[in-house]
Amino acid sequence: MNLSIKHLLGLEGVPKDDINTILDTAFSFREVLERPVKKVPTLQGKTVVNLFFEPSTRTRISFELAEKRLSADIVNFSASVSSLRKGESLKDTVQNILAMKVDTIVMRHSDPGAARLLTRFVDAVVINAGDGTHEHPTQALLDMMSMREKLGTLEKVNVAIVGDIKHSRVALSNIYGLTTMGANVVVCGPPTFIPFGIEKLGVKVMYDLDEVLQFADVVMVLRIQKERMGKGFFPSLREYRKQFGLTRERLEKVRRKLIIMHPGPMNRGVEIDSEVAESEHSIILHQVLNGVAVRMAVLFLLVGGKRG
Amino acid sequence: MNLSIKHLLGLEGVPKDDINTILDTAFSFREVLERPVKKVPTLQGKTVVNLFFEPSTRTRISFELAEKRLSADIVNFSASVSSLRKGESLKDTVQNILAMKVDTIVMRHSDPGAARLLTRFVDAVVINAGDGTHEHPTQALLDMMSMREKLGTLEKVNVAIVGDIKHSRVALSNIYGLTTMGANVVVCGPPTFIPFGIEKLGVKVMYDLDEVLQFADVVMVLRIQKERMGKGFFPSLREYRKQFGLTRERLEKVRRKLIIMHPGPMNRGVEIDSEVAESEHSIILHQVLNGVAVRMAVLFLLVGGKRG
Amino acid sequence: MNLSIKHLLGLEGVPKDDINTILDTAFSFREVLERPVKKVPTLQGKTVVNLFFEPSTRTRISFELAEKRLSADIVNFSASVSSLRKGESLKDTVQNILAMKVDTIVMRHSDPGAARLLTRFVDAVVINAGDGTHEHPTQALLDMMSMREKLGTLEKVNVAIVGDIKHSRVALSNIYGLTTMGANVVVCGPPTFIPFGIEKLGVKVMYDLDEVLQFADVVMVLRIQKERMGKGFFPSLREYRKQFGLTRERLEKVRRKLIIMHPGPMNRGVEIDSEVAESEHSIILHQVLNGVAVRMAVLFLLVGGKRG
Repeated sequence: MNLSIKHLLGLEGVPKDDINTILDTAFSFREVLERPVKKVPTLQGKTVVNLFFEPSTRTRISFELAEKRLSADIVNFSASVSSLRKGESLKDTVQNILAMKVDTIVMRHSDPGAARLLTRFVDAVVINAGDGTHEHPTQALLDMMSMREKLGTLEKVNVAIVGDIKHSRVALSNIYGLTTMGANVVVCGPPTFIPFGIEKLGVKVMYDLDEVLQFADVVMVLRIQKERMGKGFFPSLREYRKQFGLTRERLEKVRRKLIIMHPGPMNRGVEIDSEVAESEHSIILHQVLNGVAVRMAVLFLLVGGKRG
Repeated sequence: MNLSIKHLLGLEGVPKDDINTILDTAFSFREVLERPVKKVPTLQGKTVVNLFFEPSTRTRISFELAEKRLSADIVNFSASVSSLRKGESLKDTVQNILAMKVDTIVMRHSDPGAARLLTRFVDAVVINAGDGTHEHPTQALLDMMSMREKLGTLEKVNVAIVGDIKHSRVALSNIYGLTTMGANVVVCGPPTFIPFGIEKLGVKVMYDLDEVLQFADVVMVLRIQKERMGKGFFPSLREYRKQFGLTRERLEKVRRKLIIMHPGPMNRGVEIDSEVAESEHSIILHQVLNGVAVRMAVLFLLVGGKRG
Repeated sequence: MNLSIKHLLGLEGVPKDDINTILDTAFSFREVLERPVKKVPTLQGKTVVNLFFEPSTRTRISFELAEKRLSADIVNFSASVSSLRKGESLKDTVQNILAMKVDTIVMRHSDPGAARLLTRFVDAVVINAGDGTHEHPTQALLDMMSMREKLGTLEKVNVAIVGDIKHSRVALSNIYGLTTMGANVVVCGPPTFIPFGIEKLGVKVMYDLDEVLQFADVVMVLRIQKERMGKGFFPSLREYRKQFGLTRERLEKVRRKLIIMHPGPMNRGVEIDSEVAESEHSIILHQVLNGVAVRMAVLFLLVGGKRG
């Protein structure tokens, strides 16, 4: 039950076997999470540093819970309270932390490639918790786990990812992971949000959401960044909602059951309606729970296995 | 040794038996706190989230110590570092945290009723650590514990609460708790700080502090919010001190022993003098120690009892 | 294996035997840090409060790791998130925290003497993590440990401390500690940075760095505070580097091996060049690792010994 990868930097190039091992392990940790005592001693005596250079609630807390439930020792570091103020470089900060003999770094950073860069100058296990617009692999793993939970498999499942594909690390990691697992992926959004040449990654591009919904088993709605409005990406929230919002009316026209997903945080009433988000087909809160299980699995497989 | 309540949202309506159970349990935890090793394994494997939407030092640290000494796993969340910045609603934040299978939420929030609202959409145990001007039940419990420690009982004890009764969650929780326990409560302060109809809660209103001190066994001094000055509540700090400050001169006129309490943080020289706060009759630091014991008791009774 | 001191406020006056005991203990903890499981149960059930009134990354994380690896319970408190906002005095804050029965306070504060002041009104063990321009004893201990690691002894070792001696708590603690241990200490920097009468502490003052390097076995480079530039201390960073920067060129002129140290964070290209900091003679990252070991030793000897 070993992975071929040493770090989790992204899902690009991660083999199917590794993804299956992670998901299988995550399902067994899901059972631990349903127990009254949700703790296992796997990482006792191991130290994990959570290095968050971007604000985050759910991802940080999810990792922290995963680490605590594996009995790891945790050090939290967020950029705003750091000595980066004193002009220290990322490299110095990280090397200093690592020199204290920590086993793992979970890092969120605004620069694409920051996690990979980190592996060059440290010998700890690095887990990417989001690097700019590049990848967010644990999010995609929890998404895939949630789909597999509902559908039994990812093979030939039709997944539609709707929204700002261009700036979304969630979309990119899902595209890599889902295509590896044999799913059919369609991306949908305003043309300004569809990266040129995205088809090369093995996905189909469609611009009409109603048409997409006829095809999809799963609709993954992405968060719209309001700050991009009026900057040439989309004209108004109202207009966006009209064309790409997952509304009740739009769903009622589809005569099949669709699984609804969203990585959060949601803009209710923009890319998704409240009643859709809370409907019986929504698995948004399953995603959150699976997030802890997937992160436990990744930590267990990458860090726990090294114990000796 | 079970409570009739499932959450601790306030002391309004909490039966006398429950309060006695909490205080009895707290006294036994006080003994644990006097030991060199202050830890018990009661909440091992349980997760507590401290959700603080208002800044707090002592209440947050007191809860955190109580949780650690019960061996719980703890996740801290304060609003200023959260993704609430990204426009996420309280409901979404909380549901997301809860979906990670946490057992308890300790919440401080500026909205009266926020803790009760929380119980509607989560199935964890909710403990109110202060909700706006509404209630702060663990503070009142620690106050009652401190009085019982000194006087042996709360029955027929004469308690004076002095200051801004109108905006004080500490006052309101103490009024509910103390009247339930059979104490006689007098409130005292400028008329602008006495809520209309407060007598209906079973308390007496008095405006002359010197007269009040003749009657009281215990004087609980409330913190004055300096920012209310000059807004029609009171004219100046000096004037406030003259009429309602617990000064040495004022206490010397009383020929009986009074127990002095303050929930902190104090404005020394305004509502209370330094020498009064540090005199032998002051039990202010006992209140702090009892705070940890009371919070351990509440967590033990509400969360530990569910263990299975 | 007991110390004569009860607190660690500084190295001024700390006897040689105590320093040897701390360093010997630290070396044994270094071995623990090299193990896969880096944890010992020494401080289980003990509570340490980290009170940081100044921002800090490495010192805070280093103490936190040391505490976690000794299995202590930890409460973190930093001034910016505290109720000091509400106007509470340091004394009240600290007394309140202490009343919750904590065993140890690790404090960083901007006022010289703050740690000593603290011992007057609390009965916990106090460890100074830096008090203004006064002392930073654990830093000096880790520096001495790193030198002893390389050289086997501190006796008659020639140590040069280069930079802003006047405002450096690192320099002052090293001067006290190193002279106690029998090392020969030279301080070097612009005359504006050399305190008047420093020779009385048993050190030599030199102003020519090249001359200093001929003499030294160890060069400890101090961080230059850029904000002092142009305020009469030094004219420009460029000028500073020219006279007091540890450059490759300067080192090449010395035909002996020098040990290079820096307490961090570095201004690369100002007081030290990147290639010097990363050269084989630099022990900067050893200093960081030894920092955790030294802090474990201090906590073990001051707090652990009281167990029972």
